[in-house]
Amino acid sequence: MTGLVTLVGAGPGAADLLTVRAVRRLAEADLVLHDALVPDAILALAPQALRASVGKRARQPSTSQERIHRILIRAAHRGVNVVRLKGGDPFVFGRGGEEVAALAAAGIPCEVIPGLSSCLAAPALAGIPVTHRGLASAFAVVSGHAEATYGPILESLPPGAMTVVVLMGLASRSRIAELLMERGWSPYAPAAILMSASTEETCSWTGELADLGRAAVGEGPGTIVIGDVVSLSAMARQRSQMKGAHHVSSR
Amino acid sequence: MTGLVTLVGAGPGAADLLTVRAVRRLAEADLVLHDALVPDAILALAPQALRASVGKRARQPSTSQERIHRILIRAAHRGVNVVRLKGGDPFVFGRGGEEVAALAAAGIPCEVIPGLSSCLAAPALAGIPVTHRGLASAFAVVSGHAEATYGPILESLPPGAMTVVVLMGLASRSRIAELLMERGWSPYAPAAILMSASTEETCSWTGELADLGRAAVGEGPGTIVIGDVVSLSAMARQRSQMKGAHHVSSR
Repeated sequence: MTGLVTLVGAGPGAADLLTVRAVRRLAEADLVLHDALVPDAILALAPQALRASVGKRARQPSTSQERIHRILIRAAHRGVNVVRLKGGDPFVFGRGGEEVAALAAAGIPCEVIPGLSSCLAAPALAGIPVTHRGLASAFAVVSGHAEATYGPILESLPPGAMTVVVLMGLASRSRIAELLMERGWSPYAPAAILMSASTEETCSWTGELADLGRAAVGEGPGTIVIGDVVSLSAMARQRSQMKGAHHVSSR
Repeated sequence: MTGLVTLVGAGPGAADLLTVRAVRRLAEADLVLHDALVPDAILALAPQALRASVGKRARQPSTSQERIHRILIRAAHRGVNVVRLKGGDPFVFGRGGEEVAALAAAGIPCEVIPGLSSCLAAPALAGIPVTHRGLASAFAVVSGHAEATYGPILESLPPGAMTVVVLMGLASRSRIAELLMERGWSPYAPAAILMSASTEETCSWTGELADLGRAAVGEGPGTIVIGDVVSLSAMARQRSQMKGAHHVSSR
């Protein structure tokens, strides 16, 4: 009997932001292979499973993608039910597509359980709607990992018409702001950096696009949001007792 | 005591694709105001609550946005804990931003629980990663509701570099394909229509961009995906026993 491999999205960080289906599959798993950044409270949802980190962290040794494929295939061939647990959603910059393709090539049954991606969950938890009538009727999600990929895309986006969300872009946020302003975006465009959404370490910065590079933020996963919708968060915060993150503003 | 209003994302349709936090808030709610398309199995998660549909359906009388705001505010002022239950995610074309702003202006405490938006969940459940190394390093999500808004955005997107996801675009799919091809997209670009993701009625069409307008699909909510990543779904299906939707292909 071949085991089933389930790619599970762990969401932004809080254990109660996993889906019910994800929680069930974790409870049934024999083996959980997880990213480095998945919090302990989420790993605790699979108390009887063997758990191993195969995460890639910046500036640290990591498990190669090919090795992850080999581990998944070998375990499934031994009849083990594996959960491949990934931060956010498995198919949003998660290399889930590569893992599904490798499993397919090996004839291993595979299932995908979507998770809340930080590209939408981080702004939502900060009170920022990525779309809003009169402000933004579309949004673009870009990886800030390599300028060779984000450069041409940011240069193509019409200034102001879409909300821009950048994942993995903290280190390159100066360059991202520069590219957008060269493209015609206003230096006063509202911008936000949302750190460690949904966790106890959550905090956020809001300000203007021109100041994005100078924003003081700590370590951890961060989501950058650029566009007029960011101003809605501040409005909501000023006028209400909206539950949310600790908040630091440079405005 | 003022009641709390919680905007809850109901996800794409399956009851086990809500988050644990959403399920808890539904179980505690006194009143659930829901969109028309939220399935009964999800409403059943709030068995003791008063439930009312305030949904907007095409070609049918619907509750105005202003009336929804009034109902939410009045209920909260009476100390009622309200869940405003929306399909997908409250902040992705869900007018959640308007509801949060109205609640903020009225001084009502408000919380947002993100849900799985069909823009990501529908492709994921069909085995389509919206990003994939070498194929797409970014994606854009657009509403197909009005050409005045989607037209300029589709015309600006660089052909092939980003995956394009269109929500509420079934009726305008011919025009969307036309605009993208005028912009320089290949008529052979892979395209998919994913109907009623995660429900028993789920089905999908895959083909080429030029055929998008002629694709025969039924009624219901549909997600359109355009870009090379769509071809990964077909590959996975051919080579594996991937669990997924019933599948109709024009290829």
